Amino acid sequence: MFSLRFTTGDFHLRPLFVAVGLCLLLPVTGRAEAAEAAAEAPSPLQQQALAAAREYRQAHGPAILRDFASLLTIPNVARDSENIRRNAERIREDLEKRGVRARLLEVEGAPPVVFGERQVPGARRTLAFYVHYDGQPVDEARWTVPPWQPTLMNAALEAGGEAIPMPEDGGVLDPEWRIYARSAGDDKAPLAALFAALDALDAADLEPTVNLKFFFEGEEEAGSPHLEQFITRYRELLDADLWLICDGPSHQSGAPQLVFGVRGYTGFDLTVYGANRYLHSGHYGNWAPNPAQELAYLLATLKNEAGRVLIDGFYDSTIPPGPAERAALDRLPAYDDELRRELDLAATEADNAPLLDRLLIPSLNVRGMVSGAIGDAARNVIPTEATASLDIRLAKGNDPAAMLDLVRAHLEGLGYHVVEDEPDSATRRAHPRLVRMVRRLGYPATRTPLDEPQIGPVTAAMTYAAGQPPLLVPTLGGSLPLYVFVRHLETPLVVLPIANHDNNQHGPDENLRLANLWLGIDIMAALLTMP
Amino acid sequence: MFSLRFTTGDFHLRPLFVAVGLCLLLPVTGRAEAAEAAAEAPSPLQQQALAAAREYRQAHGPAILRDFASLLTIPNVARDSENIRRNAERIREDLEKRGVRARLLEVEGAPPVVFGERQVPGARRTLAFYVHYDGQPVDEARWTVPPWQPTLMNAALEAGGEAIPMPEDGGVLDPEWRIYARSAGDDKAPLAALFAALDALDAADLEPTVNLKFFFEGEEEAGSPHLEQFITRYRELLDADLWLICDGPSHQSGAPQLVFGVRGYTGFDLTVYGANRYLHSGHYGNWAPNPAQELAYLLATLKNEAGRVLIDGFYDSTIPPGPAERAALDRLPAYDDELRRELDLAATEADNAPLLDRLLIPSLNVRGMVSGAIGDAARNVIPTEATASLDIRLAKGNDPAAMLDLVRAHLEGLGYHVVEDEPDSATRRAHPRLVRMVRRLGYPATRTPLDEPQIGPVTAAMTYAAGQPPLLVPTLGGSLPLYVFVRHLETPLVVLPIANHDNNQHGPDENLRLANLWLGIDIMAALLTMP
Repeated sequence: MFSLRFTTGDFHLRPLFVAVGLCLLLPVTGRAEAAEAAAEAPSPLQQQALAAAREYRQAHGPAILRDFASLLTIPNVARDSENIRRNAERIREDLEKRGVRARLLEVEGAPPVVFGERQVPGARRTLAFYVHYDGQPVDEARWTVPPWQPTLMNAALEAGGEAIPMPEDGGVLDPEWRIYARSAGDDKAPLAALFAALDALDAADLEPTVNLKFFFEGEEEAGSPHLEQFITRYRELLDADLWLICDGPSHQSGAPQLVFGVRGYTGFDLTVYGANRYLHSGHYGNWAPNPAQELAYLLATLKNEAGRVLIDGFYDSTIPPGPAERAALDRLPAYDDELRRELDLAATEADNAPLLDRLLIPSLNVRGMVSGAIGDAARNVIPTEATASLDIRLAKGNDPAAMLDLVRAHLEGLGYHVVEDEPDSATRRAHPRLVRMVRRLGYPATRTPLDEPQIGPVTAAMTYAAGQPPLLVPTLGGSLPLYVFVRHLETPLVVLPIANHDNNQHGPDENLRLANLWLGIDIMAALLTMP
Repeated sequence: MFSLRFTTGDFHLRPLFVAVGLCLLLPVTGRAEAAEAAAEAPSPLQQQALAAAREYRQAHGPAILRDFASLLTIPNVARDSENIRRNAERIREDLEKRGVRARLLEVEGAPPVVFGERQVPGARRTLAFYVHYDGQPVDEARWTVPPWQPTLMNAALEAGGEAIPMPEDGGVLDPEWRIYARSAGDDKAPLAALFAALDALDAADLEPTVNLKFFFEGEEEAGSPHLEQFITRYRELLDADLWLICDGPSHQSGAPQLVFGVRGYTGFDLTVYGANRYLHSGHYGNWAPNPAQELAYLLATLKNEAGRVLIDGFYDSTIPPGPAERAALDRLPAYDDELRRELDLAATEADNAPLLDRLLIPSLNVRGMVSGAIGDAARNVIPTEATASLDIRLAKGNDPAAMLDLVRAHLEGLGYHVVEDEPDSATRRAHPRLVRMVRRLGYPATRTPLDEPQIGPVTAAMTYAAGQPPLLVPTLGGSLPLYVFVRHLETPLVVLPIANHDNNQHGPDENLRLANLWLGIDIMAALLTMP
């Protein structure tokens, strides 16, 4: 039996959930349909579907896991085009097996989108599911287990988890076990949940009540450079009443959530230069400029130690949350102290300001910084250059290109000559302050209104499956290119995360907690049979 | 025929050399012997030896090169104990072949020292040669050619040099050719020069006039951690009248030089910490502290943009140059502008202050800095930690441990809790400003007086071999653990470099210009037969 684990310890969340739930059940002015749908009791079919899902995953847990593990063995970095296509083919077959008419949509130079469709006679609406099957690149040296050899652990590694064999059929699975592999959480988990839910309905001879569309992208972690092309080229396939964006982690409290928006993304790399060759630090140290030292000065001008970005105009275009969003935010549990403890942080930015508030303004983050080498690999040289890769998470209202223009203006304000390509000798000789700025454009933020009527039945299905209403989050911290859907499809969308919040997505030792997969299956079964 | 190339262009160095030479020939108060020796004309034997050296290298150039190349094929990073011992054995055999009684001196856990001795009946003095046969670790990805597959180039790579085959016997060699390999310059070049000089004398049936001792170290690039142990354990083998430390590059003007001192060395690594696991930069960016950003603040406090170190007391213990050293410095050619142009530098530290002056005060240099990854390898995470490796080149008077104590006091002054080992969770949770400082102790600087009498005949021999007196440099920018010799042997020493100044030592594409090797052979022949 599934039980929700609160990873953040002694919070008393239940009363809060009830409060949030009650709030959902109250009619929102002018949006009576939403409240009505949310208030609806589960239909008999939904009750059967949920029972079928639970029975199925209890009877076939090991098979579900093995099937998921075999999907996770296929390396899935977007630029690894051979393997990424193996993933797509495999997933297309997985859909076909489940009565879904599936094909690969193609755009030149892009991993294919796996598209599937299943029409249900008499369906009242069409749900479209977005998932991405590619994952972040891996730094294998930092992984405890090989990233594409899925490993079952009897607990989280941080909690002393140890590898255990994949269970045989009939074996009992502990919901606290975790499966470790790249994309176990981000973002193959929703595929496993969807496939098992379809299998469970099929095993119980139950039909979905909604038409289904599936749109599985293969380069989200590379910034979705072709998503807009896919959507415009295949526009006529993509009509739906609601898009469910299945990605991202659950709430840090461990509770299920629905997310109405995401931060946008933009980024840039900065490189500063020293001499055109490595110099011996003895013969030239104290004389030749050191690019690592220079990069340090430069980064220190971008943001102060209190966490405030010092780039002129950086916060000006941000649209603050409205009253409904503010109210939803205030109802979300405060978990910052627990999170700090879990992460071994003595303090966080902006004098421990709440995380939820920090997500509503644009962020500036150094993703990485390299110059020369460190530790035993360090040599006694003055490095030739120093590079930092930074990202900016955009809040509603921030335009990616305009934000990068502000960065460039800041650099110029410091007296820097800014170039976009590798500078030649003449340029290096001419400019004592020289920086190369590589722009990584990205996309803007988006937010669906909290009272969108199509979302009511989703909230109800989740509440029924989880035994508690989901948290309603105006924006996720992460970024997804949702603006493309909003711009071209004019369909409401909401983000439905499956993975545990501590799934280490993007880093080493990514994992999925089985309890989250089981709940995901239940939620999918309730969604597929919504009234 | 050998001709000295001035890499820095249109300097008019000859009159200057004459001035320096004249100065050398003038008696220095209370040090009449030095001037006398320097004033001596080359002996008939020395004239024969130099002729023999030139004839030998012209007749056997390809064989000298091939022999050198075969020595360069043996990887020679100090901690690669198997290969480092292969180097030592090979060099011991090279000495034995040349009538030198050679053996490996051993200290537990250290690469052996190759020690050799050749007594000459009637010799008036004993010269001891120090060379190190280990090299810096390599970053193979940055090398144009594999570091241990010596490659002959028809010019410097920076000047468009291309690989050419090793010449057959009888082939004519262009002195501007270069051989590329790790340690081609630093520091196997003096071995090649010494061996060829001994062969040349032998081929001409000439005997050295001095007793010879050879002391070849195998872990200089690892900081010579056992040198003091070697010298004290084998103290009775090491009596000599003068130690010649054959290491370092020629003067940047291309001219030969004698160096009377070296900077000392110390260093440290600083690591600052973020969360205990990689965090998604969207979900936590703007909230979780970023260690790369923090390291930038920290480095910016160590040194200002004008190049002045901001650590309290950093310059206080430095002994400034005396009048003789100041005078020698003032006679050295100014080449900073040319050097900046050659290195594509628009400006250098401290408002373009002269390099020679900058070597007389302690330096602070970031050797490397790493946090997360950059460019296409960057992921959208907040890194867990950021590390910088720094070195401090010490001037005369600076004590390594005391300098590191100043760094620590600086960190504590910033409010940092300083630890030496990896901090545990409790420590990380307790201290918002936490830094790990790993000390790399090193050794102090040293300087031999400019008027040391044993050095006079060396200057004379070099002047004769090169056709011009060497530049006299009070201190090299680089560091060698010369203080150990000074402390335990009480013998004067001087540094005699062979390699071209642009040999890329310590970096990728290290190389030796043939002209420098040829001159090295001539100098060695003149030294071995000094009156």
